[in-house]
Amino acid sequence: MTYRTNKPPITFDVIARSGQARAGILTTRRGIIETPVFMPVGTAGTVKGMRFEALEDDLDARIILGNTYHLWLRPGAEVIRACGGLHRFIGWERALLTDSGGFQVWSLGNLRKIAEEGASFRSHLDGSPQFLSPEISMEVQAALGSEIVMAFDECAAGDAPHDVSRQSMELTARWAKRSRDKFDTLQSEAIDIADTGRTEPGETVSGAQALFGIVQGGSHSDLRRESLSRTVEIGFDGYAIGGLSVGEEKSVMWKVVAELGPEMPTNQPRYLMGVGTPEDLVEAVSHGVDMFDCVLPTRNGRTGQAFTSRGKMNIKNAQWALDTKPLDESCECSVCKRHSRAYLRHLCMSGELLASVLLTHHNLAFFLDTMRRVRQSIRSGYFTNFRREFTEGLKAYEEEKALIP
Amino acid sequence: MTYRTNKPPITFDVIARSGQARAGILTTRRGIIETPVFMPVGTAGTVKGMRFEALEDDLDARIILGNTYHLWLRPGAEVIRACGGLHRFIGWERALLTDSGGFQVWSLGNLRKIAEEGASFRSHLDGSPQFLSPEISMEVQAALGSEIVMAFDECAAGDAPHDVSRQSMELTARWAKRSRDKFDTLQSEAIDIADTGRTEPGETVSGAQALFGIVQGGSHSDLRRESLSRTVEIGFDGYAIGGLSVGEEKSVMWKVVAELGPEMPTNQPRYLMGVGTPEDLVEAVSHGVDMFDCVLPTRNGRTGQAFTSRGKMNIKNAQWALDTKPLDESCECSVCKRHSRAYLRHLCMSGELLASVLLTHHNLAFFLDTMRRVRQSIRSGYFTNFRREFTEGLKAYEEEKALIP
Repeated sequence: MTYRTNKPPITFDVIARSGQARAGILTTRRGIIETPVFMPVGTAGTVKGMRFEALEDDLDARIILGNTYHLWLRPGAEVIRACGGLHRFIGWERALLTDSGGFQVWSLGNLRKIAEEGASFRSHLDGSPQFLSPEISMEVQAALGSEIVMAFDECAAGDAPHDVSRQSMELTARWAKRSRDKFDTLQSEAIDIADTGRTEPGETVSGAQALFGIVQGGSHSDLRRESLSRTVEIGFDGYAIGGLSVGEEKSVMWKVVAELGPEMPTNQPRYLMGVGTPEDLVEAVSHGVDMFDCVLPTRNGRTGQAFTSRGKMNIKNAQWALDTKPLDESCECSVCKRHSRAYLRHLCMSGELLASVLLTHHNLAFFLDTMRRVRQSIRSGYFTNFRREFTEGLKAYEEEKALIP
Repeated sequence: MTYRTNKPPITFDVIARSGQARAGILTTRRGIIETPVFMPVGTAGTVKGMRFEALEDDLDARIILGNTYHLWLRPGAEVIRACGGLHRFIGWERALLTDSGGFQVWSLGNLRKIAEEGASFRSHLDGSPQFLSPEISMEVQAALGSEIVMAFDECAAGDAPHDVSRQSMELTARWAKRSRDKFDTLQSEAIDIADTGRTEPGETVSGAQALFGIVQGGSHSDLRRESLSRTVEIGFDGYAIGGLSVGEEKSVMWKVVAELGPEMPTNQPRYLMGVGTPEDLVEAVSHGVDMFDCVLPTRNGRTGQAFTSRGKMNIKNAQWALDTKPLDESCECSVCKRHSRAYLRHLCMSGELLASVLLTHHNLAFFLDTMRRVRQSIRSGYFTNFRREFTEGLKAYEEEKALIP
């Protein structure tokens, strides 16, 4: 079977705008995704603590993330290939985006060494020597069978000087070309592709995987612009902004997003990687970003932090010990419908598994519901109002605390 | 409001028999429970890793356990009372049985000291000195508002000699009387009762809590008989066999259950505390036991052990690494419908939360489904056949392993 068809692997239609903000429809071989969209992070083939039924039925998540680095090391690409690809392996029939492993390798710090050919590093699991390159990342992502494959990139530190950031950006550009070439070979020959999706004849998409390029360049506007133009020149199905939220000042991130967002191709999805808080998502949408992922709702849920319409809550605080109200009184999620702050606090204080399960669920529900409201407000022309009210609301707890004498 | 009514707090009707085995209907103020029944253990107000929606909708668990000892220490009876009782606190509207704390205090070993008045011990949480007595246990269980309250008992070691077991049994009898008296005072005056259930006028039960007595006596038949007759003399709504599965030989347990089961009052529920494996449950049913609880399905689920119709599986074993079959091919649970052994193994090896969540779910599904099949077989007169086939089936994996050269 080959994928030499005239249909694209994904389609993307902007259906409404409000300033730079856009509401769109992203069609993949495994379903339609309304944008702006937040993608829950499923690093090792599981959104930590979440059953897939809850992701589907309660949260209606249309796309989740998997990580090439983690899955490649454990259980290994061969295991997942033998089990029919990542969808079948984990039991998820909706869309998947897989990160290329570039960022995870970069996160290893001193454990990795970057060369032209690729990245040498030691596994965080057992210290064994490993090597990842654009070609290997494409092969692994073909075995995983994700709908959206990310190019293998190199990330510079958020505060890297111009020359370091330039080197890194140029390497990313060369790796992007190698990713593109290898990806095309794999797709055109359907080599090593475990999972061909569920596309039926007559659909608007081809059934192949899509490939996104990643813009790097650190905090330097000129490098970011150059990276964007070199990435677009190669040509991808979508474009991501990488290398942000990696220790730089928040103002630096917003400068980059504000400058870059509107310059990215208008007819393709724009993905801001690894960002962020609910207010960050709304802010980034205002600069034209369509897609997001972040570990905050899941990771912080496991440490007792809840995101709510009135701001962040540390559910372990004694103030909630007798509070029979739901986490967020304006939330409709199954956790808020059933459980009280007092109970959730008790679960957290007792180190109960269910604490992580329920807080993660609520946090994801809040993130996904926020994006639903963002989309609605863009479509109905009230995004500016929504943004102001939403951001104001998030300050409620802080303001209440400030009033305590 | 008082509970001086002529209605009993629970009713129990045996609707079918097969030898000593019985199928019955236990009616509580919070719903009807078909027996024999397995009650999932919710020690600290949560069946570890299980959402209540799954307990209700997927597993149809009609009754779960809470532990007086754990809940009394954390979050404390006053917190639960202030939140409207245990049902409202945890968000569960079906029936609850609460253990008295006697067994947990006994489990503390050297950290506790038993006197006529009660048990002095140090909290496993912070080492603080604590004191629990029949009266305090009844007060706490009234605050919790469980449908079935257990008398405060003293447990002897499984291998205790006759004189030690006699002392323990006699103390249990005196504590049973004190439990009964305090319980009756609390119920008749509705003192300190946080939750009065959901009984409507016209129902067959009173809306009060029910109290079960506990038979002790270690491994000694004469002491067990004496304990039973003294407990029945005081008079309870149901009777439990305590102090088994605490380190004695399995043959000792079966001797006690086989002798005691058929001698227990026929028109009231019989509860074998803390037992056991699937084969234990079926065996105990054959001696006339109606109710069970055990941490095995939940605790072992968290360490990678699955209970299946073909026996126990350690899902971490390498043999499952590429196995795309469900845990148990004859299981209809949502985990077996969706996930493979290979994926569950991956989750376990990766220390993922979802491993505990999914294995716990399957294990409870298997236990509850086994009890459903037990009830069906008793009602349709095939219990003996069912028991033989079920027990044979459990040996399948062991027999396969034995065949490997």
